[in-house]
Amino acid sequence: MITHTNFATEPWQLRETALDLDVLAQSESVFALSNGHLGWRGNLDEGEPHGLPGSYLNGVHETHPLPYAEAGYGYPESGQTAINVTDGKIIRLLVDDHPFDLRYGELTSHERVLDFRTGVLSRSAHWTTPSGRSVRLTSHRLVSLSQRAVAAIAYTVEAVNGPATVAVQSELVANEQLPTVSGDPRVAAVIDSPLRPEEHYAHDTRLRLIHCTGESRQRVAVAADHIVEGPEGTTYAAESEPDVARLTVTATLAPGQQLRLVKFVSYGWSAERSLPALRDQVEGGLAAARSTGWDGLLEAQRGCLDEFWSSADVEVEGDEEVQQAVRFGLFHLFQAAARAERRALPAKGLTGTGYDGHAFWDTESFVLSVLTYTAPDTVAPVLEWRHSTLPGALERARQLGLSGAAFPWRTIDGAECSAYWPAGTVAFHVNADIAAAAERYVFATGDQEFHRGPGLELLVHTARLWRSLGHFDADGAFHIDGVTGPDEYSAIARDNLYTNVMARKNLLAAADAVSRHPDRAQDLDVDAAESAQWREIAARIAVPYNRRLQVHEQSAGFTEQEPWDFDGTAEDQYPLLLHFPYFDLYRKQVVKQADLVLAMLTCPNEFTAEEKARNFAYYEPLTVRDSSLSASCQAVLAAETGHLGLAWAYTREAALMDLDDLEHNTRDGLHMASLAGTWIALAQGLGGMRRHLAEAGRPADEGRRAEEPEALGRFAPRLPSALSRLAFNVRVRDRRLRIDIGQASARYTLLAGAPLTVVHHGTTAVVAVDAPVDLPVPPSPDSPEPRQPKGRAPVTSR
Amino acid sequence: MITHTNFATEPWQLRETALDLDVLAQSESVFALSNGHLGWRGNLDEGEPHGLPGSYLNGVHETHPLPYAEAGYGYPESGQTAINVTDGKIIRLLVDDHPFDLRYGELTSHERVLDFRTGVLSRSAHWTTPSGRSVRLTSHRLVSLSQRAVAAIAYTVEAVNGPATVAVQSELVANEQLPTVSGDPRVAAVIDSPLRPEEHYAHDTRLRLIHCTGESRQRVAVAADHIVEGPEGTTYAAESEPDVARLTVTATLAPGQQLRLVKFVSYGWSAERSLPALRDQVEGGLAAARSTGWDGLLEAQRGCLDEFWSSADVEVEGDEEVQQAVRFGLFHLFQAAARAERRALPAKGLTGTGYDGHAFWDTESFVLSVLTYTAPDTVAPVLEWRHSTLPGALERARQLGLSGAAFPWRTIDGAECSAYWPAGTVAFHVNADIAAAAERYVFATGDQEFHRGPGLELLVHTARLWRSLGHFDADGAFHIDGVTGPDEYSAIARDNLYTNVMARKNLLAAADAVSRHPDRAQDLDVDAAESAQWREIAARIAVPYNRRLQVHEQSAGFTEQEPWDFDGTAEDQYPLLLHFPYFDLYRKQVVKQADLVLAMLTCPNEFTAEEKARNFAYYEPLTVRDSSLSASCQAVLAAETGHLGLAWAYTREAALMDLDDLEHNTRDGLHMASLAGTWIALAQGLGGMRRHLAEAGRPADEGRRAEEPEALGRFAPRLPSALSRLAFNVRVRDRRLRIDIGQASARYTLLAGAPLTVVHHGTTAVVAVDAPVDLPVPPSPDSPEPRQPKGRAPVTSR
Repeated sequence: MITHTNFATEPWQLRETALDLDVLAQSESVFALSNGHLGWRGNLDEGEPHGLPGSYLNGVHETHPLPYAEAGYGYPESGQTAINVTDGKIIRLLVDDHPFDLRYGELTSHERVLDFRTGVLSRSAHWTTPSGRSVRLTSHRLVSLSQRAVAAIAYTVEAVNGPATVAVQSELVANEQLPTVSGDPRVAAVIDSPLRPEEHYAHDTRLRLIHCTGESRQRVAVAADHIVEGPEGTTYAAESEPDVARLTVTATLAPGQQLRLVKFVSYGWSAERSLPALRDQVEGGLAAARSTGWDGLLEAQRGCLDEFWSSADVEVEGDEEVQQAVRFGLFHLFQAAARAERRALPAKGLTGTGYDGHAFWDTESFVLSVLTYTAPDTVAPVLEWRHSTLPGALERARQLGLSGAAFPWRTIDGAECSAYWPAGTVAFHVNADIAAAAERYVFATGDQEFHRGPGLELLVHTARLWRSLGHFDADGAFHIDGVTGPDEYSAIARDNLYTNVMARKNLLAAADAVSRHPDRAQDLDVDAAESAQWREIAARIAVPYNRRLQVHEQSAGFTEQEPWDFDGTAEDQYPLLLHFPYFDLYRKQVVKQADLVLAMLTCPNEFTAEEKARNFAYYEPLTVRDSSLSASCQAVLAAETGHLGLAWAYTREAALMDLDDLEHNTRDGLHMASLAGTWIALAQGLGGMRRHLAEAGRPADEGRRAEEPEALGRFAPRLPSALSRLAFNVRVRDRRLRIDIGQASARYTLLAGAPLTVVHHGTTAVVAVDAPVDLPVPPSPDSPEPRQPKGRAPVTSR
Repeated sequence: MITHTNFATEPWQLRETALDLDVLAQSESVFALSNGHLGWRGNLDEGEPHGLPGSYLNGVHETHPLPYAEAGYGYPESGQTAINVTDGKIIRLLVDDHPFDLRYGELTSHERVLDFRTGVLSRSAHWTTPSGRSVRLTSHRLVSLSQRAVAAIAYTVEAVNGPATVAVQSELVANEQLPTVSGDPRVAAVIDSPLRPEEHYAHDTRLRLIHCTGESRQRVAVAADHIVEGPEGTTYAAESEPDVARLTVTATLAPGQQLRLVKFVSYGWSAERSLPALRDQVEGGLAAARSTGWDGLLEAQRGCLDEFWSSADVEVEGDEEVQQAVRFGLFHLFQAAARAERRALPAKGLTGTGYDGHAFWDTESFVLSVLTYTAPDTVAPVLEWRHSTLPGALERARQLGLSGAAFPWRTIDGAECSAYWPAGTVAFHVNADIAAAAERYVFATGDQEFHRGPGLELLVHTARLWRSLGHFDADGAFHIDGVTGPDEYSAIARDNLYTNVMARKNLLAAADAVSRHPDRAQDLDVDAAESAQWREIAARIAVPYNRRLQVHEQSAGFTEQEPWDFDGTAEDQYPLLLHFPYFDLYRKQVVKQADLVLAMLTCPNEFTAEEKARNFAYYEPLTVRDSSLSASCQAVLAAETGHLGLAWAYTREAALMDLDDLEHNTRDGLHMASLAGTWIALAQGLGGMRRHLAEAGRPADEGRRAEEPEALGRFAPRLPSALSRLAFNVRVRDRRLRIDIGQASARYTLLAGAPLTVVHHGTTAVVAVDAPVDLPVPPSPDSPEPRQPKGRAPVTSR
């Protein structure tokens, strides 16, 4: 989409210089504001035209029965869909009775800017009514990172010629009419009119609406207050109905005169708290916002983001688009997580209702893997959300005849919502992904309080799942049968390699955790025999390998399956799942998304360098990348195996997924995992960043002599010819390490914290504050670049 | 159910000596009458109380959308459900204003008898009203085997004390209220009020209703006429409304006086023909029935059944229950098929709406395998029905990316209605089963006209499917991956052995058919290269075998899967599919129903005797028989491997499946395949009957010298100790062969036709009319009897 000439490439902003209604829905997603608790899509202030109106509160959803033409044991009965809550963004404008609507009159200029450092979405427009009256309009919008319940808008209208009689209607609107969605199963189901009115109120400049959902019984309260500044004769009046509360401000503006409105909005929701309690909550939030004031909110917003960027910024020299994209991505990741506070982090954040607003393994495997090293404070609350859903996961495992915990494939509140078990229930790797995220967070932060607490419980209960899910064969090998790995074009497989090596990591991390916190182990009835069995399984788990081809198998027998007929597949038959039956995809060698390749990224020590090269060469021609989760993983392995041009192409694809709307669904919200993938591709791909010793769950500093600095990371940086420089920061164990990579050498700078050891292309060096280290970048090994399936080479639309 | 003491064990009748409302629904199924075109459940004449009112016309169904919480490419969008059409059975009675309802007043006696030789369901009752008036009631009901649109009832009421004022209301009732069904997914969805009224008519003694279904646009017409015989003063009047037409006859009966009503009912339906055409059709049918008269219908009914029994009767000495059951089963099979005439033969016949009235592979693999040898004239029309659905099957294959034909897993009109693809779409063996049935029919009848025509088309298009479904591996073996065999507890498997050996049979039969009818091959564009490739695939198709265990594998890797925890499975956790998730069943060694064991029955030459014994011993402890299709196959292999006691136990289970309601769902209709299984267990199990040379599609007389009689069958009869004698007839190539088996010897008698060669326990003998052959039965080999899973030994409730 933003191949569109209206979008400028700037390092710290996303700027749209003119409005194109054809990409309105996409622009609403990329301009979405959020703090992880509350999200507002980038809808126009006046509400219409719109692609998809969207105001979301993390966790607010409606439930609905899941229909099955043929039901089966253990199928989830109830689905969940994130709903569009009461819209507090709406500020309508009438100029001499002409409604300000971009489809009418004449729009002389229109610009929107999302600034990644201020966290403010700004808009300016110059519009002339059909009758010739011109106004200049500006608005600034923020969703507060410092006050999680609060959003605010500063709205100004100025007469250009006149006198202009203007009416500004600032509203709260519930149950907005939503567009009907396509038949694509991946587009979220939309629930119409989900909110039942409970209370409406309007007085002076204050508005309030309280509603409740019908089935999930979640009460949603919204309140707004306003500061009105206008010329003499400015009047205002407030009124309310069940689904709308409205402050109408009228003024007559001489040319150059302005009417300015500051709107503070406060949201609250609960499935537990009473209506009076919730009413007080939003009024309290509103009072706090008023007290902070617009300028105070702006300042706090900037402060939060300054702190974030000081740890997280990435500099890319040689490609302005990727420079912009990586900051765009990090901004949205931070927005999505900043105040999520023990709620899920959905696959689309709070930017749209794609995937019904559900959270998947994307969160732990992609989003948290970036935030752990860039904004670690946001990570524990998300893992604590997972931990809070443990009772349901234990019950789900029991229902499935398994031990331990079986976390859901997709959910809002922790209950399984996946209605297609071959790609849901049996994608058990989500449990290892959660365990890995917990273990990674503990490694990177050293947060022993978390490790003793929710971390250990997550590790133990997931380890127990693997024990019950697999079995030892006659030769003593441990097999996990009938599961689906990351590649959704291969399901119900035996010994999915990714699942097995991630289970191994999970089992070892659990065993280490209980040995480190024996009192907590006792609380969970883990005895020595159990943890010994975990280690035994980890040692004996099957890792399928085809000796003839000398490649690992994605799952047992995968390499003997019939190859997909790529040459007979037309470009318009992608994504394949919309044009071929599952059974045909499942039984052939065709890979939707990195699976074995992902295993080589997440468990690098399971493979030799030669195996990685052969495996990558084998799977690359089979991988169609029908999932946005794929490009970043392929970028990393392409870089590791020396294919820097290919790595860069995949990096660009990951980076531009949403900005260029490569999958044609940015309208439904942003792909959080792909946004994270940009950082992964840069830091783990071109930067070659891996953990040093901590693979397979061992503490990072095991075996270290006391006087030796901790070895927390290894790097193998190499730049593609397109780049002259790449720099990124990593936060690890109270340190801030900066890696600044050029074509010939890389500099490691410790910005804060105790000295540490880095491993650079196999060479060890100690880095201390004020003692940066420069190390040469060795040349890339030379090998033929693998091909992709016909027509599936990495693409960016520019 | 009929463990119930109310049911007597008689050789030629099913007699219920008293009414128990607790088994009313089951009794309606076992007392159902049908001719394959029209079916009436054994509902009481007066309509209530009932278990499930049921009047069915083969093919009449309603369609409905199939819901998917997560849809996928190629999922069928529309389901089909057989509907309860206008009920022509109803004859209500009032005695002195008391409605005759068995729940009120006093029922002194009540008896119902289904006679397998007359094809008439008779009923007699002695009832006293709450006010003390007694009547004797008799009714006789038939669904005509000679006039397919016609059913008739002779109804008599006699006053015992009196005078009794009686009113008899003979009705046609559309849209009867149906009971709500349970949540068990196997119980058919019931569609309420499926019929929209188009015309109603009543005049003199004649009634008529015409309706049309809402979605499938099938027009259903029913007409009735009556002969009324009563004492002086008997009056009658007819009236009609949209959903009911009624003839009311009133009389006052002195003790001993009777009122007699003969009701002729004629049905017609069409999705094409106009209302006037259909009106004329049912009036014409009615005229023919009146002309034949009640006695004429009775006589024709007896004639049809005499003819059937002369070819089909089985005598069992030593077990009266099985004697009754095998005749009960054959009677229902014949009823289901007799006039099906290019319509499907549903899994429940026309005895209930279980499985939505759908036809499955059961028809070809079980029902037709019996009818081919007992009532071959009924077989070609059923296969011609399959052939008539070929255009849809070709289109379905194309949709799935395959060549040839992909017949549906479940259907009424030929369109796929299975909403769960792992146990539907990919159960491709149904295509081989259809091909095998066609090939078997040609073998048994020598019907070359069928072979050249629909037979060859069925064989060629199914052969083409296998070619496109599988692939050659690097070593030249042909594999079929991602399919589900008969065992529904193992899905999406590689090289399901049953599927592969049946595909081999299919491919060879197709190759033979095109070489025998080269002109027809040309019509279908089969060239020499294509049929050579079929033979090549047949020669190279994989047959999984575990060398270490020396057993065949149900599918590749099956024997390495985790064993099911049978000891940890409680008896009330069967059927397993209602208590365990599919994924767990699929990935473990647990077998719902004969699969490899069925392969040993249908493709006996694929296995040595030793392999059969080892395979049976291996799979028997894994097979839980959660499907009624299983017991008969296990009976056959138990007999073949020398376990005669076990064979007999399974025979009894198959035989009593419905009479004893072993699966607790006889209420939904009879299990046609299990009824067929009784004959299979007796003839193919205890009789050891197999085809001689025709396995793998070769013509039965290939290699025979011209003067030598055809070798059409081989037998290996052996009786269990429970039986003193078993005799059955086989029709093959214009012969009627009788096999009469005793404990020590067997007699082969040719009742009609040219001499033929039989092979008896490996010994060849020529049998001619009037020259029976007696041959000794060798002793059974001695080997330890295999065990079943805990609690899953064969059961009969008596």
